[in-house]
Amino acid sequence: MIEIADIEAARQRIADKVRHTPVTALDQLKTRPPTEAKVSLKLELLQVTGSFKARGAMNRLLATPKEELTSGIVTASGGNHGLAVARSAYAAGVPATIFVPTGVSPAKVAKMKAWEAKVEVVGDEWTVSNAAALDLVARTGAIYFHPFADPLVIAGQGTVGLEILDDLPDVDAILIAIGGGGLISGMSTAIRARRPGVRIIGVEPTGSPTLKACLDAGRLVELPEVTSKVPTMTCRKTEEINYEIVSRNVDDIVLVSDEEMQAASEWLWFEMGVAADLSGAASLAALNKGVPGLEDAKHICALVCGAGAEGTG
Amino acid sequence: MIEIADIEAARQRIADKVRHTPVTALDQLKTRPPTEAKVSLKLELLQVTGSFKARGAMNRLLATPKEELTSGIVTASGGNHGLAVARSAYAAGVPATIFVPTGVSPAKVAKMKAWEAKVEVVGDEWTVSNAAALDLVARTGAIYFHPFADPLVIAGQGTVGLEILDDLPDVDAILIAIGGGGLISGMSTAIRARRPGVRIIGVEPTGSPTLKACLDAGRLVELPEVTSKVPTMTCRKTEEINYEIVSRNVDDIVLVSDEEMQAASEWLWFEMGVAADLSGAASLAALNKGVPGLEDAKHICALVCGAGAEGTG
Repeated sequence: MIEIADIEAARQRIADKVRHTPVTALDQLKTRPPTEAKVSLKLELLQVTGSFKARGAMNRLLATPKEELTSGIVTASGGNHGLAVARSAYAAGVPATIFVPTGVSPAKVAKMKAWEAKVEVVGDEWTVSNAAALDLVARTGAIYFHPFADPLVIAGQGTVGLEILDDLPDVDAILIAIGGGGLISGMSTAIRARRPGVRIIGVEPTGSPTLKACLDAGRLVELPEVTSKVPTMTCRKTEEINYEIVSRNVDDIVLVSDEEMQAASEWLWFEMGVAADLSGAASLAALNKGVPGLEDAKHICALVCGAGAEGTG
Repeated sequence: MIEIADIEAARQRIADKVRHTPVTALDQLKTRPPTEAKVSLKLELLQVTGSFKARGAMNRLLATPKEELTSGIVTASGGNHGLAVARSAYAAGVPATIFVPTGVSPAKVAKMKAWEAKVEVVGDEWTVSNAAALDLVARTGAIYFHPFADPLVIAGQGTVGLEILDDLPDVDAILIAIGGGGLISGMSTAIRARRPGVRIIGVEPTGSPTLKACLDAGRLVELPEVTSKVPTMTCRKTEEINYEIVSRNVDDIVLVSDEEMQAASEWLWFEMGVAADLSGAASLAALNKGVPGLEDAKHICALVCGAGAEGTG
């Protein structure tokens, strides 16, 4: 379990290694989402490495004794966590090996290599890539950074929540994309501790409703299949820590299709000049189709969690 | 001539029709520019229509009596001003016709059409497109919005300068890309009036040194040829109003090659998740190669003036 104190500690630990990203008003639109609320975007795609993942990976790195890093860092990732781990390893001066599934964005692989990571493409979904990552860890003694279930990673991602609450004092609803559930675990812990009345809405792909299936079942379940093609948001099964936090903190999870995310990414680019990957556009995809339960919201924050050229073509 | 009062009036006039864009620190870099100064980015690419041009076009529109608009609005543009005029006409409910040169970004033409403008591709440089625009104006009685020499357009662009001075109280140098010279005319008027000690550096393409050639000659001159392929920054000849303001206010103009702008655009995307067009990356291209005269600067603002996918490929 993690507490607000862990997130505060993470914020201090990573303060001079990550960016405090800006917020901006979603206004002057040609096509408005169906809400009367003021909407702000948290531009977390401007974070170093292009996503919030830099926070968790850096918190994990800085809380780890140097002697545990000497054989390098290993992880498995749909893209953004891998980039963040590659950058953390680069900062520490140790090697990184990132296992990715076949659907990963080639542009993100190129960026991992620019951060001097070794990239291994294994399997067509994260679970398979991850098994290969764990196998390498067992064979080499490298250290493994879990993308969403590591408490230090969760605490690092939670710092996004603290920044939003600081910068948007009257926010009353926050939309957060979910892959494995690390981001929403950290953010919801921060938000519930600091401003318990804020509504917290998760957004998952229709083709990978990882946490929604758990909430509906009332327990941790594994999806029979994953049909979404969004590599940063596909996950067959979350972990107990994420399920427990999300079931306690999150008001609702809404589903969006891959096509709705693609359209939202194009819309964000046209309207705002913001180049988001599909997970980065997921919160806007939800807002554009309408989120039940936010009818009385006065100020919604939509988190744009990752950068990508998917909407600019 | 324009005065600070014109820019203040523009700011009030357009306040609820354009965005106050955010600034963000340029930090957590893998590859740093050769400067010890703090650097902030003014993210004007997040402006409605993707560039600062929305400000000038909207100020021109709102200062124009409605009856003068009934035959529609016409302009010629390398891309960004055309988009801004298209959006202004859309807002006013009147037709827009935008003349563009052959090198214009197809993505920007698509966006003009999304704002319901008619787009005419004429000539391979702005001067030729503009002659066709003026001819249509003469034939139809439509109103013409000049992209850089109209005092109301200049005053609108100047509001970017006011925002930077408000948001970065200790800024002591500002880097500004130049196409025809409208933006730097407005911004430098605001900066000289409000904080005269701030250094103002213009950035032009090596292959289109429109204002640099004038400053070197000590008078308004026309370039014998334009070899840059950056459509938003190529201009054979500026106008008297721009030359007069720039020669009075601007400390220096530095030149960057098209290739340096392309590299800066890719660098911005990798480092910051900012998708700038080549003119949007021009200030960073200058910063990355080193700007003479800024050795003592403590806080430099680089204006990212336009959105584009040029660096994301």
